[in-house]
Amino acid sequence: MKIKSVILAAGKGTRMQSKKAKVLHKIFNRTLVEYPIKVAQALGAEVCLVIGHMADDVKKEVGNEVSYRVQTEQLGTGHAVMQAIDFINDCDLVLILYGDTPLITTDTLNKLIAYHIRHKCVGTVLSAQVNNPFGYGRIVRNSFNEFEKIVEEKDTNITQKKIKEINGGMYVFNANSLLEGLKKLTNNNAQKEYYFTDVLDIISENDGKIDAYMIKDNTEILGVNSKIQLAEATTIIKNRINSAHMEMGVIIEDPQNTYIEPDIQIGIDTIIEPGCVLKSNTIIGDNCTIGYNTKIINSIIKNNVKIESSIIIDSTISQNTKIGPFAYIRPNSNIGENVKIGDFVEIKNSNIGDGTKVAHLTYIGDADIGRDVNFGCGTVIVNYDGKNKYRSEIKDNVFIGCNTNFISPVTIESNSYIAAGSTITKDVPENTLAVARARQINKEGRAKNKKND
Amino acid sequence: MKIKSVILAAGKGTRMQSKKAKVLHKIFNRTLVEYPIKVAQALGAEVCLVIGHMADDVKKEVGNEVSYRVQTEQLGTGHAVMQAIDFINDCDLVLILYGDTPLITTDTLNKLIAYHIRHKCVGTVLSAQVNNPFGYGRIVRNSFNEFEKIVEEKDTNITQKKIKEINGGMYVFNANSLLEGLKKLTNNNAQKEYYFTDVLDIISENDGKIDAYMIKDNTEILGVNSKIQLAEATTIIKNRINSAHMEMGVIIEDPQNTYIEPDIQIGIDTIIEPGCVLKSNTIIGDNCTIGYNTKIINSIIKNNVKIESSIIIDSTISQNTKIGPFAYIRPNSNIGENVKIGDFVEIKNSNIGDGTKVAHLTYIGDADIGRDVNFGCGTVIVNYDGKNKYRSEIKDNVFIGCNTNFISPVTIESNSYIAAGSTITKDVPENTLAVARARQINKEGRAKNKKND
Amino acid sequence: MKIKSVILAAGKGTRMQSKKAKVLHKIFNRTLVEYPIKVAQALGAEVCLVIGHMADDVKKEVGNEVSYRVQTEQLGTGHAVMQAIDFINDCDLVLILYGDTPLITTDTLNKLIAYHIRHKCVGTVLSAQVNNPFGYGRIVRNSFNEFEKIVEEKDTNITQKKIKEINGGMYVFNANSLLEGLKKLTNNNAQKEYYFTDVLDIISENDGKIDAYMIKDNTEILGVNSKIQLAEATTIIKNRINSAHMEMGVIIEDPQNTYIEPDIQIGIDTIIEPGCVLKSNTIIGDNCTIGYNTKIINSIIKNNVKIESSIIIDSTISQNTKIGPFAYIRPNSNIGENVKIGDFVEIKNSNIGDGTKVAHLTYIGDADIGRDVNFGCGTVIVNYDGKNKYRSEIKDNVFIGCNTNFISPVTIESNSYIAAGSTITKDVPENTLAVARARQINKEGRAKNKKND
Repeated sequence: MKIKSVILAAGKGTRMQSKKAKVLHKIFNRTLVEYPIKVAQALGAEVCLVIGHMADDVKKEVGNEVSYRVQTEQLGTGHAVMQAIDFINDCDLVLILYGDTPLITTDTLNKLIAYHIRHKCVGTVLSAQVNNPFGYGRIVRNSFNEFEKIVEEKDTNITQKKIKEINGGMYVFNANSLLEGLKKLTNNNAQKEYYFTDVLDIISENDGKIDAYMIKDNTEILGVNSKIQLAEATTIIKNRINSAHMEMGVIIEDPQNTYIEPDIQIGIDTIIEPGCVLKSNTIIGDNCTIGYNTKIINSIIKNNVKIESSIIIDSTISQNTKIGPFAYIRPNSNIGENVKIGDFVEIKNSNIGDGTKVAHLTYIGDADIGRDVNFGCGTVIVNYDGKNKYRSEIKDNVFIGCNTNFISPVTIESNSYIAAGSTITKDVPENTLAVARARQINKEGRAKNKKND
Repeated sequence: MKIKSVILAAGKGTRMQSKKAKVLHKIFNRTLVEYPIKVAQALGAEVCLVIGHMADDVKKEVGNEVSYRVQTEQLGTGHAVMQAIDFINDCDLVLILYGDTPLITTDTLNKLIAYHIRHKCVGTVLSAQVNNPFGYGRIVRNSFNEFEKIVEEKDTNITQKKIKEINGGMYVFNANSLLEGLKKLTNNNAQKEYYFTDVLDIISENDGKIDAYMIKDNTEILGVNSKIQLAEATTIIKNRINSAHMEMGVIIEDPQNTYIEPDIQIGIDTIIEPGCVLKSNTIIGDNCTIGYNTKIINSIIKNNVKIESSIIIDSTISQNTKIGPFAYIRPNSNIGENVKIGDFVEIKNSNIGDGTKVAHLTYIGDADIGRDVNFGCGTVIVNYDGKNKYRSEIKDNVFIGCNTNFISPVTIESNSYIAAGSTITKDVPENTLAVARARQINKEGRAKNKKND
Repeated sequence: MKIKSVILAAGKGTRMQSKKAKVLHKIFNRTLVEYPIKVAQALGAEVCLVIGHMADDVKKEVGNEVSYRVQTEQLGTGHAVMQAIDFINDCDLVLILYGDTPLITTDTLNKLIAYHIRHKCVGTVLSAQVNNPFGYGRIVRNSFNEFEKIVEEKDTNITQKKIKEINGGMYVFNANSLLEGLKKLTNNNAQKEYYFTDVLDIISENDGKIDAYMIKDNTEILGVNSKIQLAEATTIIKNRINSAHMEMGVIIEDPQNTYIEPDIQIGIDTIIEPGCVLKSNTIIGDNCTIGYNTKIINSIIKNNVKIESSIIIDSTISQNTKIGPFAYIRPNSNIGENVKIGDFVEIKNSNIGDGTKVAHLTYIGDADIGRDVNFGCGTVIVNYDGKNKYRSEIKDNVFIGCNTNFISPVTIESNSYIAAGSTITKDVPENTLAVARARQINKEGRAKNKKND
């Protein structure tokens, strides 16, 4: 069975108070419109976006994985769907979704479609039970509790006003019936707009069975029309993601205060402390502790790693390693096993061998570091001379005194020892003590010249 | 029409469990009493605080923008207002407010006054509908639903106990009627106290019309009597401020976890990530990203700035500049356009020219830095010699090697190059390579003496 | 009166999705099972844990302060209690608690016992009123509202299904009656399990009075069976702890976003800003400000200390001292009065005298620092030579220039002055200016060789 989905994303979104297209606002680094696209694609549907307002921006951001139709005039939801007539004329089922309702789930749409098929409908409305139905179209049912019609707020009578089952605005149709309905759709009304819900009446009049499938979780139909609703939707998605991880065995100490993007993997018994941010396909192993306010982007963290109040980007941390607090691991870094990266340390585009210690106030840029190397405090591997960047290599078991500079490119052979305060400009052979500093002179009684006394 | 406001702020606030005056506790860096003062002043009212407990502290903190009357004995709310009789005897309307109810809004008091005038009242009570009215004075209305009287909890009969409209404790009066009522107010009761609500009965008896205007948002009448209520009021104010920013087009990813003081300006489409703290008249432009756990105090951030996990105080950041993570910009710093201030960097009382890069582990204090200067890691501009502080100047296009010290005052002319590991004590002319370091000596085989092997 | 408590902790906890024993999961650094143990001990009860699943792990973690009985087969709650028969045969009262219900309080159990005694019961059930009783055993009462029996969900009739008073699962018994009941307990049922609630029927039949005492706060009976419930219980405990501190006079700006372990002391009017974490018996004085995202473990903070975005472990901070932002105080550090420890500073196993300033980018390890010492930026006290660690001493009123290294062990006598950029390897006498750096050479016109121009 061939399914296609038309996603309406042409609206202006004035209430967003934004210079950006509404559907390009992001929740956890995904645009709003990406959410229904991914849901439709998970159902095997081919997707067409009906775009209008800032159409070029939307196309550029969403890319080639979907088709586009442009609605040049804003003449109603029916008119929007009409733009996609040629897109839907070769499929069995059509799902109508919205670019600004990111909370709808694959599971719900699967159930909607199953209901649609089992009940032999030609069109099925996704409905919801709400406490305050004001403003929504109401689902009117007959005395057998069968779907009869949708009545818009302005057309409701007193009895209908009390109906709490509302039109959630999403639908599945048999493609043929929808095409028939769209062909007959007119704008004979005061606003001269094409209302999509009129299609239901048209299909009904032709003896097509329309029904409504009621959603379990109302939040799935929430639209994002303002930045307050954007924040609300973000909270709902946050809670869903965090609950799913907890159900898989992750310990999230405060799910309200933990920000995990979709598509992150976390192993069992790993503890995520409050304030953490996990982004972009990060994979975390078992039994890790991701400490307060840690941010990890697109990185692989192996088992039993402890990270505290640090930032890690596009890197790999091997098992039993400790990072932080206040460390900054920048892209293309490979940190070995049993490594200690301490406070106020930056690592960039470097490989750090197993057992190496970089305890504090150090910068390692563009370097290959061996095993069991000890970095004194204040060490800098100077990778840039103002013109070019160079790599340096420090081999196994080297001891580096504090406040040492390495002027890349240099190679420090294994088991050598760099005296504190040295600026190393030449290679150092194995087992060698390298010193590059001035002798200390004590000028007694001279401190008074220098100091307020 | 001349409005005056009497704000009662004499109470002891025992439940606060504090050594500070209750009304001097702060919410988002404003004292509790400042909230109703600002609201009254926004209505054009002149304000008088009735103070008592820790009166001197309150006067010192609040200052000269309001008048004060001292209530030396705590003989009831009526007695408190009586202290201000000479203050209110030359105006048209009197607003009675409280120093510990910071949630009341200008909008609500505007409506209260409009109601008071339109309904030709001589006194109007601000009332509220609550679910649990126990403990409050009830608004008793007659069969025409007109205000009749206020009955205190202890005097309620069974029917009155069920009334859910309560006295919110704030009022507007025609000044003359209030003065009349206060003159006749007595303490003929068991507690020998002057109850302010008795004034209403006195005025009523003299055929003055008293009415009640019901507030929409009950939270506005909440008083702060304990530190738990202080936290609750803080949360309500936080949500109000954050909602207002979102409505103006700011993206606040988690409004529960974002702390923005009143009087902050933020441009549209700027993203505020969780954990951020914005204080003291900070102004942020459009399209900025204020990243996780950033704290900005009294600073100006221009458009398109990206800040991550950093602290900025009393400074200006120009457009397209990136700050952080883990940067600390201290007062009187002026950071130019397209600048990069990286991790573990402190800038203090300095000017940084456009395009300059201060990537990591650097301190710039009391210095003027030109354009396109490159700071190596570990650089220190040494501004203090134990006696005095000095300024240094580094001109355009200078390259500074790592772990360099500048002993202020020095001037580094443009296009010069400072070798890594140098301590610069003298000025450096244009296009000059300055070196101040020892040569490297490799002592082969000597590493074993230094290391455990 | 001798009280003993049997705490059931043998279950597998499959829903936790964990490789750890369920009752060893932690909330605020205490295992789940430690919560009821401490509550029982606070009542003066001797405690016996009935363990089974991962029994050795539980014993190892909980230690010798409780007795253990092992339930080798999982044959029901009655069977679990039966394992402890020899433990309870010499006491007056027996409390039955659970290893996975950490929210129960001493106050509630005190009231349960008082009720039990005052009403001359032989067994008293802790019951609770819930909105959704489905799944729980219902408390059936007679027409005099007296306790009659407990009916399990599967055995309820239509009337009983509507009962909202449920069995909270905790009990107090007269030891003799409980022992009698346990002796007669059988597994004559479909599941061949020993149900503990059958004991109540057995005792009742022997004319022992069973009653139910209804808990005020339902959350106290919540069990932790999944990591979602673990997070929920953590939130409840967080709120309880924070409310208790606020009631004692601590200002917690956002209690939702403040993580304070049990057994922390905080003085009045101290402000805890959002994102703070206080752990392991930390004691904080009056009038401190614990700024955003500060983490303090097992430390003593005296009065009037200001800490900002820093981490402090196993150390003491004396009064009027300022720490941070971004400072890291590691174990065994003693920071004096009126000290300033600034940004990107690490202190480890060191004593810092009163009035000393360590403003930025400095590491002090294994050192004793006098009063009024001034540390320039980038200073390192080098405590490790690759083989051993050494201590250094810097006496009063020393001025240390920037980017200085001290190669421990060295002693710097008072009033001396260390020039910036020096590596100090030898002791420095009093009043001495120590210099260890190369002279600056300016090579004019040579910068072009080094730089892109």
